[in-house]
Amino acid sequence: MRTRKTPNSQHPVSPAEARSLIRAGEWTGNTAGVAPGYAQANLAILPGELAFDFLLFCQRNPKPCPVLEGLEPGTWETRIAARGADIRTDLPAYNVYEKGRLKATVGDITGQWQDHFVTFLIGCSDSFEEALLRANVPVRHIEEGRNVPMYITNIPCVPAGVFRGPMVVSMRPVPHRLVTRAVQITGRYAQVHGAPVHIGEPQAIGIRDIAKPDFGDAVSILPGETPLFWACGVTPQAVAMEVKPDICITHAPGHMFITDLLNEGLAGS
Amino acid sequence: MRTRKTPNSQHPVSPAEARSLIRAGEWTGNTAGVAPGYAQANLAILPGELAFDFLLFCQRNPKPCPVLEGLEPGTWETRIAARGADIRTDLPAYNVYEKGRLKATVGDITGQWQDHFVTFLIGCSDSFEEALLRANVPVRHIEEGRNVPMYITNIPCVPAGVFRGPMVVSMRPVPHRLVTRAVQITGRYAQVHGAPVHIGEPQAIGIRDIAKPDFGDAVSILPGETPLFWACGVTPQAVAMEVKPDICITHAPGHMFITDLLNEGLAGS
Repeated sequence: MRTRKTPNSQHPVSPAEARSLIRAGEWTGNTAGVAPGYAQANLAILPGELAFDFLLFCQRNPKPCPVLEGLEPGTWETRIAARGADIRTDLPAYNVYEKGRLKATVGDITGQWQDHFVTFLIGCSDSFEEALLRANVPVRHIEEGRNVPMYITNIPCVPAGVFRGPMVVSMRPVPHRLVTRAVQITGRYAQVHGAPVHIGEPQAIGIRDIAKPDFGDAVSILPGETPLFWACGVTPQAVAMEVKPDICITHAPGHMFITDLLNEGLAGS
Repeated sequence: MRTRKTPNSQHPVSPAEARSLIRAGEWTGNTAGVAPGYAQANLAILPGELAFDFLLFCQRNPKPCPVLEGLEPGTWETRIAARGADIRTDLPAYNVYEKGRLKATVGDITGQWQDHFVTFLIGCSDSFEEALLRANVPVRHIEEGRNVPMYITNIPCVPAGVFRGPMVVSMRPVPHRLVTRAVQITGRYAQVHGAPVHIGEPQAIGIRDIAKPDFGDAVSILPGETPLFWACGVTPQAVAMEVKPDICITHAPGHMFITDLLNEGLAGS
């Protein structure tokens, strides 16, 4: 009888092994902590007629929308973010939206695939959180076992074609004496959101109640800490959904695409 | 009688003034030194059916293809690189190519414009040359009054759709003791080619004879100098021409689009 490793922090697997387990249906859970050291990506699949506008939106808004790989129309095989992965089967769970409404959460989208689909893999702040932790900058939502809190701001993205909308940010509280360090560390990771877009007062970017995030979970902000806000990869998904495309497929929250890209490789040279 | 300023180093004009003179047909010369401090951009206009592949090519090859602005299909008015410029009239000279062959050099392309055209403005190394000069790093081709020498290398670009081809580089010789400084200075300008792609031995990147550039002019390399090679914005034009599009319009060499973007604004934060 063949036994296979189950990915967890005791038994880390390579990205290729993780994708193979997922493709075989042997790993359907969320991908946090799977293949540590490697970047995980948000997924957005759109109808072909929206592809140019969406890529242009990402080009104009690189902080919230860092494209790790865009695929040619109709293509499901990745070449840059991972060698030979199949975008239709290699994520543990997908959300399928029609006209902006969630229709199904599925483990594979081979049946839904259409020839004109265009796929985008978008960077994620998980990549710089590893670097923060290595530098002893605390990451509160990890400490508290929650999802990162995310907020819709009053910062407008630069529109492109049919796409427009506000920037979504993630928030991490940082002790005063470590704020500069956190800026410097994350600023190195220009391909995964980079330095914060705002430091301090939440009201200044249109956040009324820091205890009530629009997505994710609230986390504690301790005395002597400043909230830091980073552009968030949920932005392009939120903006795409506003357009109510006939069909749009994303990863299910927490069930990301595991790339072959080292997080360290996403730091600027 | 109304008199108008003629742009030159004694009488610098603003980017908006320069574009207005050009639009009125009162400035048809090359744009070197016009509106100092402001970025100038390469122009590429392609048929709509090539737009997504071309933007994807630029996304995959950001060092040779730094997009300062991509315009929505059919749009001629810029919004990001310059406020309210008209891409059909605001460059002093355009090259019109059909099936990859130069058909005409014209002062305005209003007559050639088609509704499906998609326009890309691509960053240029002129932007970082100002910074090199400010730091007393010599820029040989400026000293010698020549065009920067450019070479086709054996470094492949990452293909995208129909677009593929080698990287074109520009070369500047730098005294040994200033090589690190030149790397650090240009590395700050990630939006305009960034740090060199190669330092030293030309043969290592497929350049057989440094005295015979593929484009531009040869320049002197003095004893005690190292040749530094930067990714060059001619790359996307060369790659686009290989596809022999039905029609493709570029700026005429040296006759660039003058943006409202400060060169300093193209340095990373």
